[in-house]
Amino acid sequence: MNLSTVIGIALGIILVVGAIFLGGNAIIFLSIQSIMIVLGGTLAGTFVSFSLSDLKKIPSLLKIAFTDNDIDSDSIIEILVNLAKKARREGLLTLEQDIQEIDDPYLEKGIQLVVDGTEPELVKDIMETKLAYMEGRHSLGKGIFDKMGQLSPAFGMIGTLIGLIQMLSELDDPSKLGSGMAVALITTLYGAFLANLFFIPLANKLKVKSQEEVLIKELMIEGILSIQAGENPRIIEEKLQAFLSKEQPGEEASEEQVDTSRVVGENA
Amino acid sequence: MNLSTVIGIALGIILVVGAIFLGGNAIIFLSIQSIMIVLGGTLAGTFVSFSLSDLKKIPSLLKIAFTDNDIDSDSIIEILVNLAKKARREGLLTLEQDIQEIDDPYLEKGIQLVVDGTEPELVKDIMETKLAYMEGRHSLGKGIFDKMGQLSPAFGMIGTLIGLIQMLSELDDPSKLGSGMAVALITTLYGAFLANLFFIPLANKLKVKSQEEVLIKELMIEGILSIQAGENPRIIEEKLQAFLSKEQPGEEASEEQVDTSRVVGENA
Amino acid sequence: MNLSTVIGIALGIILVVGAIFLGGNAIIFLSIQSIMIVLGGTLAGTFVSFSLSDLKKIPSLLKIAFTDNDIDSDSIIEILVNLAKKARREGLLTLEQDIQEIDDPYLEKGIQLVVDGTEPELVKDIMETKLAYMEGRHSLGKGIFDKMGQLSPAFGMIGTLIGLIQMLSELDDPSKLGSGMAVALITTLYGAFLANLFFIPLANKLKVKSQEEVLIKELMIEGILSIQAGENPRIIEEKLQAFLSKEQPGEEASEEQVDTSRVVGENA
Amino acid sequence: MNLSTVIGIALGIILVVGAIFLGGNAIIFLSIQSIMIVLGGTLAGTFVSFSLSDLKKIPSLLKIAFTDNDIDSDSIIEILVNLAKKARREGLLTLEQDIQEIDDPYLEKGIQLVVDGTEPELVKDIMETKLAYMEGRHSLGKGIFDKMGQLSPAFGMIGTLIGLIQMLSELDDPSKLGSGMAVALITTLYGAFLANLFFIPLANKLKVKSQEEVLIKELMIEGILSIQAGENPRIIEEKLQAFLSKEQPGEEASEEQVDTSRVVGENA
Amino acid sequence: MNLSTVIGIALGIILVVGAIFLGGNAIIFLSIQSIMIVLGGTLAGTFVSFSLSDLKKIPSLLKIAFTDNDIDSDSIIEILVNLAKKARREGLLTLEQDIQEIDDPYLEKGIQLVVDGTEPELVKDIMETKLAYMEGRHSLGKGIFDKMGQLSPAFGMIGTLIGLIQMLSELDDPSKLGSGMAVALITTLYGAFLANLFFIPLANKLKVKSQEEVLIKELMIEGILSIQAGENPRIIEEKLQAFLSKEQPGEEASEEQVDTSRVVGENA
Repeated sequence: MNLSTVIGIALGIILVVGAIFLGGNAIIFLSIQSIMIVLGGTLAGTFVSFSLSDLKKIPSLLKIAFTDNDIDSDSIIEILVNLAKKARREGLLTLEQDIQEIDDPYLEKGIQLVVDGTEPELVKDIMETKLAYMEGRHSLGKGIFDKMGQLSPAFGMIGTLIGLIQMLSELDDPSKLGSGMAVALITTLYGAFLANLFFIPLANKLKVKSQEEVLIKELMIEGILSIQAGENPRIIEEKLQAFLSKEQPGEEASEEQVDTSRVVGENA
Repeated sequence: MNLSTVIGIALGIILVVGAIFLGGNAIIFLSIQSIMIVLGGTLAGTFVSFSLSDLKKIPSLLKIAFTDNDIDSDSIIEILVNLAKKARREGLLTLEQDIQEIDDPYLEKGIQLVVDGTEPELVKDIMETKLAYMEGRHSLGKGIFDKMGQLSPAFGMIGTLIGLIQMLSELDDPSKLGSGMAVALITTLYGAFLANLFFIPLANKLKVKSQEEVLIKELMIEGILSIQAGENPRIIEEKLQAFLSKEQPGEEASEEQVDTSRVVGENA
Repeated sequence: MNLSTVIGIALGIILVVGAIFLGGNAIIFLSIQSIMIVLGGTLAGTFVSFSLSDLKKIPSLLKIAFTDNDIDSDSIIEILVNLAKKARREGLLTLEQDIQEIDDPYLEKGIQLVVDGTEPELVKDIMETKLAYMEGRHSLGKGIFDKMGQLSPAFGMIGTLIGLIQMLSELDDPSKLGSGMAVALITTLYGAFLANLFFIPLANKLKVKSQEEVLIKELMIEGILSIQAGENPRIIEEKLQAFLSKEQPGEEASEEQVDTSRVVGENA
Repeated sequence: MNLSTVIGIALGIILVVGAIFLGGNAIIFLSIQSIMIVLGGTLAGTFVSFSLSDLKKIPSLLKIAFTDNDIDSDSIIEILVNLAKKARREGLLTLEQDIQEIDDPYLEKGIQLVVDGTEPELVKDIMETKLAYMEGRHSLGKGIFDKMGQLSPAFGMIGTLIGLIQMLSELDDPSKLGSGMAVALITTLYGAFLANLFFIPLANKLKVKSQEEVLIKELMIEGILSIQAGENPRIIEEKLQAFLSKEQPGEEASEEQVDTSRVVGENA
Repeated sequence: MNLSTVIGIALGIILVVGAIFLGGNAIIFLSIQSIMIVLGGTLAGTFVSFSLSDLKKIPSLLKIAFTDNDIDSDSIIEILVNLAKKARREGLLTLEQDIQEIDDPYLEKGIQLVVDGTEPELVKDIMETKLAYMEGRHSLGKGIFDKMGQLSPAFGMIGTLIGLIQMLSELDDPSKLGSGMAVALITTLYGAFLANLFFIPLANKLKVKSQEEVLIKELMIEGILSIQAGENPRIIEEKLQAFLSKEQPGEEASEEQVDTSRVVGENA
């Protein structure tokens, strides 16, 4: 479970609902009609904006936003370095046995291509094409929530305009102006709340998670190609660490220095 | 028919019109003058923004947004793989017979160039130039609806300003303030509704459909060039699948792995 | 005359002025002071934003937006193909005679360079540099109107704020509130109207026309270099058509197919 | 002095101050507190946004916006062509004598490198690195004014909110509502005025001037490298003119044609 | 301590709090509920937008924004030039002794790689990968504050809407309208103030500091590779100065000219 998504949404709801209850008379904030216009209108605009097959992805996009990547970059580097060591000792073909144990289908695919003797150029081409189009699909997914985050305040305003026009046109008794406006403004509140606690942040979460996944896959491509080229496992580790280099000057400096001297010393 | 466009627009209209009727006195929401200012002003601004020849494309752009691409990427891959097999068995020239049966004019053109013995460089050049300028035309089409989505709320506001100024300047009786504002606000409502249910989502639909079409055409270029190069049909299938790679880890992994081993085994 | 610009502006003015007259009391919408603040302020901001030499281009930019490109891409292709045929038959030097008849100075320049025996690399370099800096100048021209479209609503708001502050600070008689606000809002109306019927759409028109011109010039570069390389005129036509390829699947498919077979047949 | 900057600011101030005086009671528009919140807040936000060493450049940025580039591209071309002629006649080393007379330090530097016998690759590298980082510094300078143009309306709104809250919370006498709002709105007016007459247009002026300077420097690089390569001075002139090519079809066409024939004739 | 950040925030708080106290009755501006909705809501949205591991970086991001880079580009150039001199005189391996004295871990790492005899290609690859992913991490950090700057005015508006709806719906006594609106508006004020004095400027500060760091690291890469290539230390200094070239025409011109003649003279 993606803790930050759950904490964020819970916190947001508690704060806003809390503020409403503290003000007393919370019942006036509940309006089926407002929900229908905001949620329904946002959905309607999203249907026009995308294709059905894209919209079917919404549940799985939500699932992505609410769960954690269980891919750990350090363990991926470890796996790649171990494969590199084995490949150097016993030959590329022996990696066939290890494919079953690789959890990530993208990495599995890459190693399979290497084991099958595919040319490096083609391996790179296929893996990068897969990655590029994966990025394209991710950005479409993000785009759906972005669009919803843009449409929901707009339909909130549309609902408020409808309410205002109805109220103002029938205004016989000026003393009802206040309560009429209150009702009309609820739709704007719904639109702003949905956009700023759900749609816009969820779109951002999907973007951030996509970037993480792309980083891991770029690291995998680098690793797979290095294994195929038969490079020194320690040089491979060095190269892959560059993707992740931490920024705590102190520790890093001394640690990495030691690593390097070992690695490159052996390589020289 | 593009189901999501139709569903979205129907849903949006039902919800908003429903909300209006539930409020009673729906007749006040009908204003010929407001329609004229919003739709007319949007059209006027769009005329100034584009050329007549671009604006003539609006009906066909609407048709694109309301119909489905009947191009299925899987069947395109199948066609390309079959052509590759035949070309390998019987030579490139025999593909001439198959050209008539290709529905897609872009693919047909590419195969024709190959059959005619055009140099690979030139085939790639012509096909990519065609694709690049097709993207340019698509983006112009999207741009028309984007511009309308930007102009219609602006003219909605212009109409409301005109109404407000007229109403306020003649305000003898403060009790008429309400109904005057109601009338003035209708134009803003029209502008927001048109932009957020029609223009902005339709622009997005055109963008999404253009991206799909570009993907298919990139896949066709890759396929055509691979056929011309006489590559192994299974390698071609492998490469083309990378454009579409699905993301359900489980199934995909096992499926593709089998494919790969067959493909590359034969190739080795 | 660029019909769409003229139609658009006429339509926009008729609609808005019509709506004003239908409301009666149109005279209140005329305010010299508001015009001065909006137009003058926009001009002032534009003067600060650009240099005098750029601003001197405004009349010629307006002329571009109000006139039609009389360059027809089909006739350009015809000219290039005819030049290519002649060059192949009688040599590049004989093109000297045809230069006088070329209307477009850019194309004329390119052919002159070819006739003079300039190296292909240098021809390409000069023509592309010219094109790149032409694009730069076009984008500056578009930028002037964009900036005006951004400044005019801002100065509309500034004028309204001034009016509101004057009115509110002297408000002894609440019954005058209405007419005071009416007067104040006129400046906002002016700013919005100028931006959305003139500045923003004119900027877009300039962008669209620049894109058309760039397309034509890219086509010319391709054609000039192909002529210099002595390529088959039919191959040249084929390549140049790729810049313009129409998208009506039916007709295009059959037409182009015939062309191609002729062209490439001869070439093979 | 940059005439357009001065004219624009003078015009803007005259118009707005004029409109204020025409309304009578101009004294209410003067508010030390509002100036402090808007200018002070904008400055505060700008301090947080940038480093002190960047902010120290504000005076020199203002100087740039208020003065004219005295570099004339035509005379630069003339200088370069003359240097090219001399270098061809008497050798590159003799250019040493002319370096003192070059006003522009960038051009001087480039010629110095050439005279010193630096390799062309390295000359290009150094000159382009200098140019790239100059562009970076320019874009930072523009960014400072952009940020101020974004912050000043925001602090205008913050000031108005403070005023409104104070006024509304102490509202015993509804008749004072008007004058209270008038005072509160002055801060918004200040913020909008500062942003739209000063900060945003000045940022644009800096961008436009940077583009001009980059163009001149790109032209210098091209010229310096051509001189070093010992190219024909007339070809150099031809190439450099492509950076500036004017767009008056008529004159240009005939003029340039003559030039070209001379140039290339000699070169052939 | 980053002086400009501290001065800016202090100045902003003094001005705004001062304006509040000058208006008297400052106590009404304090609202726990408003703080909770704005800060809490912003935090909630930020939690949904990012992952926990990214959010844990907020304290160190704040530290970066509030402290000064102590890296001085001039001293880095000096170090690099000294290393280059020593490497030329005594060989690359002798640099091992100097590594301990290098403070910057990135530069240390690069020199270590050179000392260890890593191939230049690989050194460049590793250093540039490290830099690219560092930029990615920086841009994520900036993104967190950008998102907060976008969310806090939105939650300010949400809080004001809640307050308005509560106030309007219970409005029996119109005389309480004023104080009710005052209370409701406080949340908007909080949101605008937080965004424009803290979040948006801090995001910009992080961007500016990241650009400075990237410049320094690009300079280091250039220097390290030049040292490894055994280039003339004076040429190296010349190249590295191009990254920083100042823009005071007068001084610079004469100074640099002298340098150059010495440098290149020796090199020739």
